[in-house]
Amino acid sequence: MITIAQFGAGRIGAIHASNIAASERCRLHYIVDINPGAAKALADRHGATVATAKTALEDPSINAVLIASSTDTHAELITQAAQHGKAIFSEKPIDLSLARVDACLAEVKKAGVPMFVGFNRRFDPSFLSLRERLKAGEIGAVEQVVITSRDPGLPPLDYLKVSGGQFRDMTIHDFDMARWLLGEEPEEIFAVGSCLVDPAVAGVGDTDSVMVLMRTASGKLCHINNSRRAVYGYDQRIEVHGAKGRLQAGNHSPTTVEVANAQAVSTDKPLYFFLERYAAAYKAELSAFLKALEHNAPMPVGPVDGRMALVLADAAAESLRTRAPVRLPGKGGKP
Amino acid sequence: MITIAQFGAGRIGAIHASNIAASERCRLHYIVDINPGAAKALADRHGATVATAKTALEDPSINAVLIASSTDTHAELITQAAQHGKAIFSEKPIDLSLARVDACLAEVKKAGVPMFVGFNRRFDPSFLSLRERLKAGEIGAVEQVVITSRDPGLPPLDYLKVSGGQFRDMTIHDFDMARWLLGEEPEEIFAVGSCLVDPAVAGVGDTDSVMVLMRTASGKLCHINNSRRAVYGYDQRIEVHGAKGRLQAGNHSPTTVEVANAQAVSTDKPLYFFLERYAAAYKAELSAFLKALEHNAPMPVGPVDGRMALVLADAAAESLRTRAPVRLPGKGGKP
Amino acid sequence: MITIAQFGAGRIGAIHASNIAASERCRLHYIVDINPGAAKALADRHGATVATAKTALEDPSINAVLIASSTDTHAELITQAAQHGKAIFSEKPIDLSLARVDACLAEVKKAGVPMFVGFNRRFDPSFLSLRERLKAGEIGAVEQVVITSRDPGLPPLDYLKVSGGQFRDMTIHDFDMARWLLGEEPEEIFAVGSCLVDPAVAGVGDTDSVMVLMRTASGKLCHINNSRRAVYGYDQRIEVHGAKGRLQAGNHSPTTVEVANAQAVSTDKPLYFFLERYAAAYKAELSAFLKALEHNAPMPVGPVDGRMALVLADAAAESLRTRAPVRLPGKGGKP
Amino acid sequence: MITIAQFGAGRIGAIHASNIAASERCRLHYIVDINPGAAKALADRHGATVATAKTALEDPSINAVLIASSTDTHAELITQAAQHGKAIFSEKPIDLSLARVDACLAEVKKAGVPMFVGFNRRFDPSFLSLRERLKAGEIGAVEQVVITSRDPGLPPLDYLKVSGGQFRDMTIHDFDMARWLLGEEPEEIFAVGSCLVDPAVAGVGDTDSVMVLMRTASGKLCHINNSRRAVYGYDQRIEVHGAKGRLQAGNHSPTTVEVANAQAVSTDKPLYFFLERYAAAYKAELSAFLKALEHNAPMPVGPVDGRMALVLADAAAESLRTRAPVRLPGKGGKP
Repeated sequence: MITIAQFGAGRIGAIHASNIAASERCRLHYIVDINPGAAKALADRHGATVATAKTALEDPSINAVLIASSTDTHAELITQAAQHGKAIFSEKPIDLSLARVDACLAEVKKAGVPMFVGFNRRFDPSFLSLRERLKAGEIGAVEQVVITSRDPGLPPLDYLKVSGGQFRDMTIHDFDMARWLLGEEPEEIFAVGSCLVDPAVAGVGDTDSVMVLMRTASGKLCHINNSRRAVYGYDQRIEVHGAKGRLQAGNHSPTTVEVANAQAVSTDKPLYFFLERYAAAYKAELSAFLKALEHNAPMPVGPVDGRMALVLADAAAESLRTRAPVRLPGKGGKP
Repeated sequence: MITIAQFGAGRIGAIHASNIAASERCRLHYIVDINPGAAKALADRHGATVATAKTALEDPSINAVLIASSTDTHAELITQAAQHGKAIFSEKPIDLSLARVDACLAEVKKAGVPMFVGFNRRFDPSFLSLRERLKAGEIGAVEQVVITSRDPGLPPLDYLKVSGGQFRDMTIHDFDMARWLLGEEPEEIFAVGSCLVDPAVAGVGDTDSVMVLMRTASGKLCHINNSRRAVYGYDQRIEVHGAKGRLQAGNHSPTTVEVANAQAVSTDKPLYFFLERYAAAYKAELSAFLKALEHNAPMPVGPVDGRMALVLADAAAESLRTRAPVRLPGKGGKP
Repeated sequence: MITIAQFGAGRIGAIHASNIAASERCRLHYIVDINPGAAKALADRHGATVATAKTALEDPSINAVLIASSTDTHAELITQAAQHGKAIFSEKPIDLSLARVDACLAEVKKAGVPMFVGFNRRFDPSFLSLRERLKAGEIGAVEQVVITSRDPGLPPLDYLKVSGGQFRDMTIHDFDMARWLLGEEPEEIFAVGSCLVDPAVAGVGDTDSVMVLMRTASGKLCHINNSRRAVYGYDQRIEVHGAKGRLQAGNHSPTTVEVANAQAVSTDKPLYFFLERYAAAYKAELSAFLKALEHNAPMPVGPVDGRMALVLADAAAESLRTRAPVRLPGKGGKP
Repeated sequence: MITIAQFGAGRIGAIHASNIAASERCRLHYIVDINPGAAKALADRHGATVATAKTALEDPSINAVLIASSTDTHAELITQAAQHGKAIFSEKPIDLSLARVDACLAEVKKAGVPMFVGFNRRFDPSFLSLRERLKAGEIGAVEQVVITSRDPGLPPLDYLKVSGGQFRDMTIHDFDMARWLLGEEPEEIFAVGSCLVDPAVAGVGDTDSVMVLMRTASGKLCHINNSRRAVYGYDQRIEVHGAKGRLQAGNHSPTTVEVANAQAVSTDKPLYFFLERYAAAYKAELSAFLKALEHNAPMPVGPVDGRMALVLADAAAESLRTRAPVRLPGKGGKP
């Protein structure tokens, strides 16, 4: 039984706490949040205790921390958890600054604690099945990857201002998917972006519509398209072309109901957003984290994955700014 | 908080116990089973207590019983639960004998306790959504209903011998769906059946492949087809034709992955069987039962539904035997 | 080069004439129709000559006749064509009276001329592909067949009055499909029917909504459902269940366009009606007729097929009238 | 009745000749080809006459020429046809050299003859329907376009050597689709490419796998992916994202047959290649050309379209060579 202290009692925190509480393999002991009301409400719901970070981290009964607090606190909490010898499950991103990420990960390495980065999409049943079939050779060697990832609607401008920009906040998930599917690091990236959904987004220096091209050393090609608006719901699809065929994973819908009427033949829109679409993925990533801890095995998504997705996001942002392709160091190492 | 005693610790019992345990609205207090090992294992898993039927029924803290024991015990347990004033959730069928069903339901009526019959398919998200859209008038008045219901494989012959026959054991679910979708009682039924999957089924006096036609007083028509074998998995589909269109609900698949290769474009088989396909339905039916209890509201599936599905199954069996259509009393009343 | 005289210049006649004209393997020589204007217009369009039946039949250059005139003229024209030694392509039905059919087919047999009955659906690319895969053993032995066949809208009442009733006019196509897919003759049939689309249909003694069950000697089961109204277009689907799987053939749509918007994800309605859906089938059946003539080979759809579909339609009508199942002679022979 | 002289009796020429012969609105008078046997065979099949280019162009009864000869002859034939005052239907590309294209189009302009460029995909029923719905505002303003275009297999190396490279030979169709769907000219283009299918392609200085990004002045974004190999058949899909939704047009399949077996649920592969997929498009583009001639209306696809697709292909090739994005003149004009 793994005993967990969770940092963050917001929207994502509520999902994680509920999954921890429902698992027979772990126990939710502490909830830490700067908002005492949110912390208490979530703790009460799951029979946990509200605590300060200090109390939680110094309690020797705590095996692991789950960090689901705001992005700007991740690196500091990871560092402290590492220094206290706790296993770490951290929501992405580790930080928006690559320098701080590197400093933080150096501490994790020094402490020798296991660390999992919450790229939940890798645990979506459809994406995971596609990846396993890909690795099993079902379509031969990968040649091209196309990732479609479109949010149902624009987040608040206040959020956008501190989000690090569309590539670091949104595309970062797709960069992780791309690396996971390509099976090798991109060595070149080019990005274009526009503000088509709302001019206010340009007002805060961000884009809402982007497209990315990447190329790996062996010549595999990858495209990502993102939008902050998809009126029909959360559009999350991947498509991989290999020497022997094509694998696709499509959207998930609430029901299989189809209506045929005088206008058209219609089915459900995709599930609305990440809470719905990735509900199973959030459960499965917790399970994978626990399993790695239980078996003292390597984490299936680790610090280098968190770091490399940010490297790609930074490079995309630079490409957008300079209107030129950006060369990458490859291999996940520093340039 | 509703406190529940559960009868039955088998395969279906395990599902119900798990759903009760996961709900914040009820508590699993007792597990009763003739197999003490099974009872203990299930009770331990969910922090419940093993008890005799007597103890469970006489405990005044018990608000409700969930009956998931073998079919031949249902009527007796329902009767006892009613006599002890407990709310009742019973797996279908109430009994394989209509006479015993009527005697049992008379006791329920006398006791005035609420009773829910576990026709779980009504709570499948796709079927439920279809029904709601139907009731909302989306395709106008219902004209024809087609129900496809095919099991992945043959149950053991020992089970078939005591199952009451394919109509009472398998089609009974579809009879309930038919009534629910047609919105009126069938007044005529005709059935054909064969033994195409395994001649041993004929050896125990049963069929493995049946088709049914029904007609209501206002002329609505309904077809059901069943097989005990579908090598591709559990085939559970409904199709309703109305004056303004067609509503269909199809199978559910584990993932949305599609592969295109030199042979074909292929997707996942449907989910394997009822445990997988109706996992959400089992949860939702428990929730509906609790909600009705909490609000002192009518049960969404009640004794008359359990009785009428059996009336139709009996009539289908008679039609198959006599090779003639059978007239039904209509309105759910006795002839 | 096969030279053809065509009887009938109506809607179906126009299709056949156009297909004959477009083929390099035959030549449209005469158009015969009781309506001189229609005959002339069609003849002019394709460079053919208007003629009387007598002229056409007595012209020794004519190898074959294509009969697409009104149903009540089929038997007489078939008989005359046979007596003149012409190969015959006749639209279904041969006649609405089984006695007249038998008399007519006796003449065909006596004359020894090849005769093709226009069950065009057998030549629909999807249905034909399904049948070929079925025969190739892809899903093992056939166990159950489900046929859905629903017209977009009600024909004029004047047409219904002389149509022979829904089974002989509409279901007759499905009876042919059933025989073709089952691979053996039904020996029992039961039918139910209602008037749900328009009460005026009942006023002319017909139904607009029917369902049929059939059983073959070896126990294979078949269901057909029909309606005279499908607001979403022509609904033409078949589904065959075998020991090793399920084969389905669905509707055809004009395009593959899909729209996702704030309401739903929608695709095209099925093609509107038989002219659109079976355009390829009409071409392919002509080609099959010509091929059999060219190679002096048996016709792929012959007199017995035309006769048996009517036998089943008659039996269905009798079942509907008597509210009892009807036993069939089997094997296509007379009782 | 428009009288046509056709240049070219190869694979594409055979399609055009057959469509001309089948139309009641035009007449195929001459076939011109450097291969006398091919010319004679095609002419004989459709009752046309073999002629030299001189004879065909100087015959005043000829209203229009259809140029389906090898690419290197297009510009010269277009020029001669223009000088003889003939209406022109030319297969794409006009030429592989932009300078020659401009010289040729200057002659067309001087002669004032109507000219149609055979971008057949614009006339595919699915793509055309999508475009019409787009223009009708069904998904609001266009934001992003994704074009997938993958050939079933590699052409012969001898063909590749003279093809002008993948962008000019293959992507050129997608560049035309992009312009047609975006509704404005790209002003920036970036391309990546690899040789993943066969190293021999690199040996002739070409790629077999490419991805392109484009951006218009107003910020609309477009992605194209191409491969010379798709083992499952011709993969031709478009996807347009707008402010109010998403429109997609998918592949076409020979049948709607679906099989469910112990492995998967499978449907047909897409139609094999352009002859199958675009059969309807070839017919429709001829009809559109004739209609414009009959009504003295502007050609739906004209010289500027042929020129601009080449401008984009040249820019993509330059981007691939320089590994940098290329700025475009915009508006279809010269820089």
